[in-house]
Amino acid sequence: MEVRGVAPPAWVRDSIFYQIFPDRFHNGRPENDPPGTRPWGERPTSQSFFGGDLWGILEKLDYLADLGVTALYLTPIFRASTNHRYDTEDYFEVDPVLGGNEALKALVQELHRRGMRLILDGVFNHCGAGHPFFREAKERGQSSSYWDWFVWEEEEPGYSCWAGCASLPEWNHDNPAVRDYLLSVVRFWLKEYEIDGWRLDTVEYLPPDFVREIYTAVKGVNPEAYVLGEVMGLGTPWFRIRALDGVMHYRLWEGLVHFFAEESWDAQRFAHHLWHIWRSYPSWANFSSYTLLGSHDKPRFLTLAKNDQRKLLLAAAFLFAYPGAPAIYYGDEVGLLGGEDPDCRRCFPWEEVYPHHPILSMFKRLVSLRKEEETLRRGGLRFYFACGRALLFGRPYAEREVLLALNAGAEEAVLPLPPGRFREKESGGLCAKALRLPGYSFSFLTRVT
Amino acid sequence: MEVRGVAPPAWVRDSIFYQIFPDRFHNGRPENDPPGTRPWGERPTSQSFFGGDLWGILEKLDYLADLGVTALYLTPIFRASTNHRYDTEDYFEVDPVLGGNEALKALVQELHRRGMRLILDGVFNHCGAGHPFFREAKERGQSSSYWDWFVWEEEEPGYSCWAGCASLPEWNHDNPAVRDYLLSVVRFWLKEYEIDGWRLDTVEYLPPDFVREIYTAVKGVNPEAYVLGEVMGLGTPWFRIRALDGVMHYRLWEGLVHFFAEESWDAQRFAHHLWHIWRSYPSWANFSSYTLLGSHDKPRFLTLAKNDQRKLLLAAAFLFAYPGAPAIYYGDEVGLLGGEDPDCRRCFPWEEVYPHHPILSMFKRLVSLRKEEETLRRGGLRFYFACGRALLFGRPYAEREVLLALNAGAEEAVLPLPPGRFREKESGGLCAKALRLPGYSFSFLTRVT
Repeated sequence: MEVRGVAPPAWVRDSIFYQIFPDRFHNGRPENDPPGTRPWGERPTSQSFFGGDLWGILEKLDYLADLGVTALYLTPIFRASTNHRYDTEDYFEVDPVLGGNEALKALVQELHRRGMRLILDGVFNHCGAGHPFFREAKERGQSSSYWDWFVWEEEEPGYSCWAGCASLPEWNHDNPAVRDYLLSVVRFWLKEYEIDGWRLDTVEYLPPDFVREIYTAVKGVNPEAYVLGEVMGLGTPWFRIRALDGVMHYRLWEGLVHFFAEESWDAQRFAHHLWHIWRSYPSWANFSSYTLLGSHDKPRFLTLAKNDQRKLLLAAAFLFAYPGAPAIYYGDEVGLLGGEDPDCRRCFPWEEVYPHHPILSMFKRLVSLRKEEETLRRGGLRFYFACGRALLFGRPYAEREVLLALNAGAEEAVLPLPPGRFREKESGGLCAKALRLPGYSFSFLTRVT
Repeated sequence: MEVRGVAPPAWVRDSIFYQIFPDRFHNGRPENDPPGTRPWGERPTSQSFFGGDLWGILEKLDYLADLGVTALYLTPIFRASTNHRYDTEDYFEVDPVLGGNEALKALVQELHRRGMRLILDGVFNHCGAGHPFFREAKERGQSSSYWDWFVWEEEEPGYSCWAGCASLPEWNHDNPAVRDYLLSVVRFWLKEYEIDGWRLDTVEYLPPDFVREIYTAVKGVNPEAYVLGEVMGLGTPWFRIRALDGVMHYRLWEGLVHFFAEESWDAQRFAHHLWHIWRSYPSWANFSSYTLLGSHDKPRFLTLAKNDQRKLLLAAAFLFAYPGAPAIYYGDEVGLLGGEDPDCRRCFPWEEVYPHHPILSMFKRLVSLRKEEETLRRGGLRFYFACGRALLFGRPYAEREVLLALNAGAEEAVLPLPPGRFREKESGGLCAKALRLPGYSFSFLTRVT
């Protein structure tokens, strides 16, 4: 599982991640809200601010700890002009609207006190058009010492920018001064604020050797810090050059959407897809990748499942039984809905957090199960059965094996079991040879030795 | 459009590619058919051979020239045991079943005489389990001098193999001897057989610096040779390190499927997708990428369009109007159907080639138009209108501009035109301000200056 020269931090595969879009989680201090802040819960537009902040996250750590979360991933928090903050204006200042550097310090301290971790979003391909270096270069032209920090072009808007968005000018990564500057950002927050890693934005747009430099810089400060990449395609090249510990597992997500939410794939195709990915990545990368049902860049899983909660719960059971570091996108655990961005970034509905909430309770159960069973976090992967809407796979680890049997269809299914005897986790009942599952249900089994 | 240190061959953007799966195009010499060859036209399984060969392609060059094709891409032709030949057993021998090296020599000679070009499929991530080096290493173990040419693992099947397929053992690219061997293959066919480039299989599985070495080796033999990569995700990293001239444009293909075939995207979303890709790649890479409606790895476009020929023709009009090197997947031009692999690899239905075949005639017209209009091959890209099912974009080049207006929906659409006057290519009629298009139709316009 370990590879020469690279060893993703062991804590990653034991983690339960939780992704927060800071403007939308909880408003801890209304006094720092930007002018024009909208009422909490209103449907978001691409322009709206709702006043969520880091103080709000700090206030809700009990909720997160109770859910079983052990690590947070926050989308960008540095000073910027949009609500998503992918248009950085100051890499060294937490946005005052979020509580500033002081709030980050307090948040990290409290997380660490609880044994929880934090990774931040590193946006190193581009900055915002309001970044002072870009503004100066644009205003003063070639006489500016920052002229060579950007890539000037004849075509509109006159400079290289991310996917053609004029508001996101791309850094000139061929300029060593630019790399030094960005690497100093990478190191600063690891050293001075003791964050536990970086999620790197738009990795596929960065020069591969620069991604490798970021990786080396991170490990130079803290070999136990996590380097997670936003990679929409195959992660293999990045693992080949050992530039990332893991990827946000959008390829796995595609399979989950096709099989569970849309039901456009049968179990055989789904299992083939899973096996293909599993064998395309080095083992350490499979275990250190961030597995997800949703993110701020995709419609909510429950929305894709046309609000069928049974499908969300099946997909969640799958996620918590599968190798990788499972992540909950804020609000998914209480059934928050939302279509394409910006709709998938709605305010967290705190009124939905009540005892015995059916989705929340199931998420908690699945999280506990994963924490109890080391084999779900560290075991290998064996597919036993994939047919129609039914799937059976196991996670063997040393002498132990936990299996997940699931039926993602409306009709009852009978799943043949591999040789041996098994105990159903839920009922404690023993079974052998076959397992009968009602429509849209699942069962965890342990192999009886 | 040109970048320091890299200049994709100019001929690429002027080309009309045609992809052939050699076992399925035409059987020129039945005497070299393998035993058990199936009757031409039978539905293929993953095991079937139909006897197509390079002599068959040679015989059909008149057909291809008449269609307007200027370059061929052949899936693997080296000796192997499967019908797809991605399991190479001898990199220096064209499969005797295809006519052997002699047939390749004759084919290249005749292609070049006609001013046509040929690129071959380079499978350098893995070989077949029947490759003699692998067999020796497996049989003799560590005493074999080829032991270090592969990556031995504890996990089943005991060695690293492509996506877990035991029949495709992966080369150990960390071994310089392996690289030398594969690079000698790259050079051999360029030098000795004067092929015009390589399509590199499974690029995302190769070490990036090795892809760059392949690129350098190719250009060392012939700076005008084309290096095309099979990249399923974003091509940007490969362009960043200048390791490819272009990619097989599966990201564009996804958009074409969503917008034209499935109608699951509206024009606005489609245009946004197009613009995003257009601005994510360097300009030279957009023009040198291979744009496609289908390949041996995807269901046929017409099948995805539920056999609605109007949708195929709209997508084809789009392809031939768009930047890149448009490619025809053998048979698409006569309406060949087929689902997932192996069904998308059916035998070419020669009985379908008759005068005034509606699809074939339209493909020919589109190819001619692209050849006549340099601006379609070399012009920039401007989106003017995208709404509902209607799209309008232009290809400006020097003083000239050709526009494609299309309505990919059943209802009549009225498209607002940009300022100026335009002439419809088909009718010669002048128009200004707006253009009315019946359902599922398109019109090429030229700007009148």
